[in-house]
Amino acid sequence: MNKQRYAIIGAGALGGLYGAMLARQGFEVHFLLHSDFDHVREHGLRVDSIWGDIHLRDLHIHASPETMPPCDVSLIGLKTTQSHMLAELLPAPTRDGGVVLVLQNGLNVEADPAAIVGEQRVFGGCCFLCSNKVGPGHIRHIDFGKIVFGPYRPSSQFSAAAAQAGSTAADIDAKVVLIGNQICEDLNSAGVPTEFSEDLALVRWRKLMWNIPFNSLSVILNASTKQIMDDPNASALAEAIIREVHAGAAACGVEIPEAFIEKTLENTRKMVPYDSSMRLDFLNKRAMEAEAILGNPLRAAKASGYEMSRVETLYQQLRYIDQTNS
Amino acid sequence: MNKQRYAIIGAGALGGLYGAMLARQGFEVHFLLHSDFDHVREHGLRVDSIWGDIHLRDLHIHASPETMPPCDVSLIGLKTTQSHMLAELLPAPTRDGGVVLVLQNGLNVEADPAAIVGEQRVFGGCCFLCSNKVGPGHIRHIDFGKIVFGPYRPSSQFSAAAAQAGSTAADIDAKVVLIGNQICEDLNSAGVPTEFSEDLALVRWRKLMWNIPFNSLSVILNASTKQIMDDPNASALAEAIIREVHAGAAACGVEIPEAFIEKTLENTRKMVPYDSSMRLDFLNKRAMEAEAILGNPLRAAKASGYEMSRVETLYQQLRYIDQTNS
Repeated sequence: MNKQRYAIIGAGALGGLYGAMLARQGFEVHFLLHSDFDHVREHGLRVDSIWGDIHLRDLHIHASPETMPPCDVSLIGLKTTQSHMLAELLPAPTRDGGVVLVLQNGLNVEADPAAIVGEQRVFGGCCFLCSNKVGPGHIRHIDFGKIVFGPYRPSSQFSAAAAQAGSTAADIDAKVVLIGNQICEDLNSAGVPTEFSEDLALVRWRKLMWNIPFNSLSVILNASTKQIMDDPNASALAEAIIREVHAGAAACGVEIPEAFIEKTLENTRKMVPYDSSMRLDFLNKRAMEAEAILGNPLRAAKASGYEMSRVETLYQQLRYIDQTNS
Repeated sequence: MNKQRYAIIGAGALGGLYGAMLARQGFEVHFLLHSDFDHVREHGLRVDSIWGDIHLRDLHIHASPETMPPCDVSLIGLKTTQSHMLAELLPAPTRDGGVVLVLQNGLNVEADPAAIVGEQRVFGGCCFLCSNKVGPGHIRHIDFGKIVFGPYRPSSQFSAAAAQAGSTAADIDAKVVLIGNQICEDLNSAGVPTEFSEDLALVRWRKLMWNIPFNSLSVILNASTKQIMDDPNASALAEAIIREVHAGAAACGVEIPEAFIEKTLENTRKMVPYDSSMRLDFLNKRAMEAEAILGNPLRAAKASGYEMSRVETLYQQLRYIDQTNS
């Protein structure tokens, strides 16, 4: 069997790292670049990584989706604030039935690509990753890096669509799991610790337990994770937010063990001082992912009858700050 | 009957204005000054006020409480962050049985002076005032200015103390009301719109409905009241906080009419763009009154079984900001 062909849509801190790892391992990887195209064409892609530094010169790079071949897997590494561009970017690399792996932050971020290629061709995943883009075509991967992903199964329409297409839900499920396992194997073979999960909602909410408090507070308090954890009031607030997100998940039917609360705090205490992606966006006057990371979970919990008051407070503060920052 | 003699403890934006109004009207007013003493001795006290500009040169000023005569009323205009100094400042001017009028921000701020002079000699009040100290001995009063105050009756120890002293609670109450009415008359005669209230808790919680959201958000969001009210997310957050404080008051047995929520928002919309006192403290790297304005109400509501999650979030954020600001 031939190796799967990958498209990297959004080759920043996340897509650039994983794409480079796959390319180094010999996978055919097509990078869709925008502002960095000329730089990468001349100088290649440079990744300073705890997994070993990578400098790739002979890459398949594209300035437009039109030149991309059909790919088996299109990995979405764009910011969710750019997801409106997917309608233009995704059709070309997915045109022969390839699947999409959405590694964006937040909740329900698979909805946009699913509207383009269909739900049964979408996987979502979370990256436990400290990585920053430090210059054109230059990424610095400083800690962690594991991917946990799973099939996007948002609704009963899934089975309905399957039935309409003449397949049973079980048929489709089996195929989805097969593809998921192949992607998992590819990434692991390339040195990216990756886990396939049948429960994407659990994966996403667990990640939100970190992302909501630490992305938000790092911007609102202008603080690193270390500064937050070292201050008694800020760390008590972080814990209260984590508990609220934990309860929000439960309201949405996602049961996360209680012990994961303390584990999240403990991991953050041990983390190297780190600027969250939202703080970097803020400092660089880019739009922040407040809708994907806070707005969507907030609305999901509210629809299930649970009000996350602290998260709503942070959300409204971030929306105001975002508005005045651009 | 001789006019009452006043002491002004803390002659800043608030004490300076009210002291100057009383002095202009012919009351004997003794100002206790600290850093401004030399400036005021040379140049007098200047108040630019919507009630008419005042420039007073012949003032009774004191650099230490030791030189102050006994006064009938000691008006406390210090920041609550300086209340630990009252044990040193209050005994002299109150030594002949004078009362104390606590015009500080927050909740339960009468407890410190009450511990010094006794509960039955303490009044508390709120000032609906936009006034800033703009330089040494120079105050700018830009809007509003009404005082609403009432007797501090925190506990059943009040009647117990009265009984011990050989008086009935009714005797003491009648005397307190008499003194309160006289202060009220003095201030009104001096051109300060003043109201005497039998329900200090109601007065304080109503003020907190403004002070908590707008002081906090003006610091955390680095915004004027106008910027907050003009932004849909920030104004929605302000309203949610006001509703939470309203519910916190109810939990503490203080019933504020529902209509006061909208009135608070409406008044703020009509207010001239204004830097809250907490924002000025923040910008000038002074300690912020987070304990008096947020911490005390938070703990009072919690003791009554109601958790103000949004207020707690703001409190923890402010405590962090305060810590990193000095």
